Parts: sequence; structure tokens; C-alpha cells
Amino acid sequence: MKSFSFQILYKSRSSRARLGVIRTAHGEIQTPAFIPVGTQATVKSLTPEEIRMVGTQMFFVNTYHMAMRPGIEIVQALGGLHTFMSWDGPIITDSGGFQVFSLAKDEHATLVKITEEGVAFRSHWDGSYHMFTPECSMAYQQALVSDIHIAFDDCTPYGVSHDDARKSMERTHRWAIRSKEAHNGDFALYGSVQGSVFEDLRKESAKFIASLDTDGIAIGGMAVGESKEEMKQVLDWVCSILPEEKPRHALGIGELDDVFVLIDHGIDTFDCVQPTRLARVGYVYSGKQTIDIQKSLYARDPNPIDPACDCYTCKTFSRAYIHHLFRVRELLAYRLATIHNLRFMHRLIEHVRTAIQQDSFEEFAHKWMQDYI
Amino acid sequence: MKSFSFQILYKSRSSRARLGVIRTAHGEIQTPAFIPVGTQATVKSLTPEEIRMVGTQMFFVNTYHMAMRPGIEIVQALGGLHTFMSWDGPIITDSGGFQVFSLAKDEHATLVKITEEGVAFRSHWDGSYHMFTPECSMAYQQALVSDIHIAFDDCTPYGVSHDDARKSMERTHRWAIRSKEAHNGDFALYGSVQGSVFEDLRKESAKFIASLDTDGIAIGGMAVGESKEEMKQVLDWVCSILPEEKPRHALGIGELDDVFVLIDHGIDTFDCVQPTRLARVGYVYSGKQTIDIQKSLYARDPNPIDPACDCYTCKTFSRAYIHHLFRVRELLAYRLATIHNLRFMHRLIEHVRTAIQQDSFEEFAHKWMQDYI
Repeated sequence: MKSFSFQILYKSRSSRARLGVIRTAHGEIQTPAFIPVGTQATVKSLTPEEIRMVGTQMFFVNTYHMAMRPGIEIVQALGGLHTFMSWDGPIITDSGGFQVFSLAKDEHATLVKITEEGVAFRSHWDGSYHMFTPECSMAYQQALVSDIHIAFDDCTPYGVSHDDARKSMERTHRWAIRSKEAHNGDFALYGSVQGSVFEDLRKESAKFIASLDTDGIAIGGMAVGESKEEMKQVLDWVCSILPEEKPRHALGIGELDDVFVLIDHGIDTFDCVQPTRLARVGYVYSGKQTIDIQKSLYARDPNPIDPACDCYTCKTFSRAYIHHLFRVRELLAYRLATIHNLRFMHRLIEHVRTAIQQDSFEEFAHKWMQDYI
Repeated sequence: MKSFSFQILYKSRSSRARLGVIRTAHGEIQTPAFIPVGTQATVKSLTPEEIRMVGTQMFFVNTYHMAMRPGIEIVQALGGLHTFMSWDGPIITDSGGFQVFSLAKDEHATLVKITEEGVAFRSHWDGSYHMFTPECSMAYQQALVSDIHIAFDDCTPYGVSHDDARKSMERTHRWAIRSKEAHNGDFALYGSVQGSVFEDLRKESAKFIASLDTDGIAIGGMAVGESKEEMKQVLDWVCSILPEEKPRHALGIGELDDVFVLIDHGIDTFDCVQPTRLARVGYVYSGKQTIDIQKSLYARDPNPIDPACDCYTCKTFSRAYIHHLFRVRELLAYRLATIHNLRFMHRLIEHVRTAIQQDSFEEFAHKWMQDYI
């Protein structure tokens, strides 16, 4: 029996922003929420306790990566992702499509072949042959026992013609129908809106995906090369059409300055590797800036990364120590920076939730962005 | 005022093994104790809380590495190692000599020059020029505010002639006198015994260093290439001479099968990178074996690394999951394996302490080594 629901708790009076709660078999997600990425069944460098400690309610696992290593069948034999990773909270998986289409963009291009049936490709690890279809994407996500599944879609790259974008979108729609038919109703299913940066296509796709009556709706094909202005336009077009009562997930977006735009459009959840990826190269959020902790400037700085932060890293270590760990390439560096950046992101959104509740979202967003660097 | 003492709590009736307690300004160490290595002011991949959680009472920091990066003066400005690392337990530092002499063995040989004054060398990081002397080694360790300092010694490489070993030992003795004179009495000082694998030299060195009346005695120049049999002989010669009432530290020794030999000779503390270094390449202790968790054999193994272990890793994750993390080179892998290997080592020694107390050390050691692989 499906244990999934979405409830809107409060609506902003001046924008599409809303407070809500997504309920799953593995717990609740207070929305809006940032969803960290745990690509290979690990939020890089963190234990499950730390993932929770920084304020994470749900994270993202990539079906493509699970299919390559360790293999879906192994995760299934171990009892699914929750048991495998020892995480008892909600998990969202993607369809596997995005990574496969990403392969198509780089040197592996000849390894990827798209047909009506699905996408054939070779593993980036060992060159082994694989084929993803809507049906196997659904079977994989079910085997992973994630709480929220995403329909298999054709991820249109940025810069294609209107004609190609239409063909890609139409394939996405046919695959969405097949995904829905193959999907096990015990889990939540999100349809995926495509249509590149074309108004007519995005609106058509939003209408079509909404008509399928899935549990939620994902917006795909963003953060693939378009400008921030184009991204905002896509959100305008799509969110004006999506039914209010369904939870909306923005796939792969979540740089610091995107937070307000997303929430302003009524996006409920969004995932992005940026906070964790920046952390691992020593770029850490501090106030309204992102600072490079490896700079000599911080070599003898006794202050925490962000004096206003309540995370373990800031409560325990100086910039000087973290600077040292990065300079000598010590493993602890990556973890401490990851803990901080994730906590910073979650805390920012906690403040946004409070602002929405107090009808001061726009003011809060404006003030925050005013001196953002 | 010096807050350092050593008290023998119980002596084995059948060997030199003893239970004791070392008291420092930062807490007690129940001995015998394994001392993990935190080379660059971090026990690789662990937070201070985790270092403590696995059962660590004190760890080792390398003065050479601190002098190269971040620089002694920076650690001092930040309040010393305890504040810098956020660790409030005891810390032992070495003289800096071992690493410099290690440089002399490899391709950097031409960069190292030994004189009566000290050792001149170039940094392995940036080629900058440095000179370590007994006086600056003492000043450095004081600036690091470690609890136990080690006298600056000439680390004789393995395989030298009796004549060269004597010259090296005599230099070590002259440097020990200078170290003691330069040493700040608020901290504990351990003299360092050298003499390579020669009986007369080791005994002469043990007598000389014991005569200096330092707070404890370190045995150096071991684990530098000699056989296990030679190592045992050196321990026999040295430990038959050392005064019983002083704590004894064996420098750089602590492979699993060394534990019983060391304790049998009345060694109270010993440091070794092996448990943590093995962990980072996926070699983990399990029962009486060291297993390579990356082997396909473990790809779908739902058991913990060691079913008898009480560590966080074993209580939380399967071999299959840790195997996966190593195979996809995820940062969490190194930490989970490090936590396990350190806990395994500390727990083994906790069992040894109980056995000593119960006059069953020899029996315990014999039984443990019987089916050790």
C-alpha cells in the first residue's frame, strides 16, 4: 500500500512559494527542502548520522550509478538502498536517464544509442553493454526500494533546435506513459517535464505530464547549459501550468542563488551536487560569500568558517585548521567542508520556511540576495 | 609544573608484561596501549570524537610534518596542537629526526646533511631549507604543547656496519644530553635508545639513556628493515637493562603480531601506522585474519567486517556496502575501515590488559597467535 502524500500547509500571499509536507513510508519532508545528492549510495564523505545531523530530510541516489556499481541486483539482495546504506529516512531515485544522456555529450558519445525502445550504452566503468528502458528503470527503482521514483525521460541537451526538442519531448511523453504502466503503485512516481527552453514545448509538456496523474512532478532538462534567465523563464512557464496540489521537484538545480527563484516558483524540493562538490575543493559558504579556504589568507585564522553557523565543523574547528587539512590533502578536510556547506544550505532554507510562514518571503529573499557575492 | 607520572599497577608473574597508568595534564593512559599516528595533526579521516570513540587514549603527531606544514609557528599561534586539532586528550610528538632520516634513504638523499650540530635538509613539499637540532626539536615540541616530547636522535638505518652504528649511537647520546638541557621541564621527556641490531651497542645505549633520568624511554631505530627475530632480540637486550619504573615507548612498531612480543617485553606504549594505513587500502582485521574487503568474495556479503567487533562500522554496515565504497573509491570507505582497524587494535589490547591482570597473558598470547594468519 502506498504511503505517500503531499499536503500544503501554508501559501505565500505574494508569490507561488508554499510550505508543505511530503509523507513517505520512511518519514516526512518539510518543504521547501534541499535534497543532497548521494550519487553512489553515499553522500560523499558522510555517515547516515551526519547526513541527518546537518538537517537532511531526504537525499537523491542515481539509478544509473547503482546499475553500474554495485549492480541493482546486489542492492536488492542486500534489502534495498535503506538497508544497504543504513539510512532509514526517505530516498528519491532518478530514472537513470540523465547520466546516460550525459555520457552522450562527452567522449563516450558513440557508446550511446537512443531508440523508441530505450537507450543502449556502455558502462563508464568497464565498457559492459546495458540498455535502459522505461520498464527497466521502473523495475530498478523498485528493486532499490527508494521512496520516490522518477519516470524515464529523454533528457534534451541544451542548444538543440525546436524541432529536435519537440521530438525529444514527445518521446519523453511516450516513455512517461510506459513508466506509469510499469510502475509499482506501492511507491510514489513523479512524471518528468521536458521541452528545453521553448515556451510552447514546456507548457505542452507540463500539461501532458500533469494529465498523467502521477504522485508528483519533476522538472527535468534544466541546469544543462542554459542561462539563469532562461532557467527562470522555464520555471515561469511550467509552474503556471502545474497543478497546485502536487509536489514539484526541480532536477539538478540548487546553487545558492537559485534557492529563492525555485521557492518563489512553488518548487517544493530540489537536488544539486553544488554544495557538496564545492566543499570537496575547499569552497565553503560564509555569510553571503563562498570563500576558498585554501587561500593563504586563512592560514592563521582562528575563526570558524562562518561565525553564524551552528554546524559541527564551525563549532569545533578554525579556518586555520581546515585550511591546513586542505593544503596537505587530508581526508578529514572534505568531510568537514561537506558538513558545513550542507548545514548552511539546509539552514538557509529553514530560514526561508520561517519567512514564508510569516509572509515575509519576498523581503527575506530580497535582503539575502542584496549583498550576495 | 610538570603533570606527568607513571605508575605500575600490576606485574605479570611469567613475563615482563605490566599494567600501568601514565598520567598527563590532558588525562590518563592505561598501559599497555596502542598509540595511533596522526602524522599531519589528524588521525587520517577521523574527527577527535571518533579517535576517542574507537578507544584511543593518546596519539602521535610528527614534529617534522608540523614544521613543514602548517609550520610550528602557526600551530603555536593557534594555541598548540590540542586547540588546533580540537583534541583534549594526551598527545606525544617525536623529535622530527625519524622523518628527516627517512628522506635520507630515498631520492632526496642529497638534500640531507648530518653534522654534529644537527641535520640540514630540504622540505619534501617545497624544497625550502631547514635545520633540525636537539635545541630546535625541543623548542618545536614545546611550541606544539604536546604532553610527551622525545629527545632528538640520529636514527641509524638498517644494514650499517658496527662502526657506523656506534658513531650514530654516540651522536644520539650527545644529542640526548643537549635535548635534556634544552627541554622545558613542564613537559615529559623521553630519551631515545639507538644502537641498530648490535647487542653491545643496544645495551650500552640503554644504560646511557637510562642514566640521563628522563621521564620515560623510547626505543628507536626499530621497524627500519630488520627481521621480526632481530626486533625481538633488540627488545630482549634493551628491556633487560631499562629501569622498571620508567614508561617505555617502542617507536614505529605495532603490526598485529608485534603486539604480544612488545607487551611481553614490558613495553608500555607503541605507535604504528599499520592499522590505519592498511585500512585505507581496504585491508581490514577480521578475527585472526586481515582480509582484503575489495575482493569479489565480499560483494554481496551481508555480514559485518568482523562479527565479534563492537565498532561503529561493524554495528552499522555490511561487508558488501564497504566493498562497494572501496570499489567506487568513495571517501567514506577509508573512514569506516580506519574506525574498524583502530577499534580492533585497541580492543585486542584491552583483552591483553585483562589477561595480564588475571595472570593469563602467556596463555592468551599463545592462543591468539596459534591460528593467526
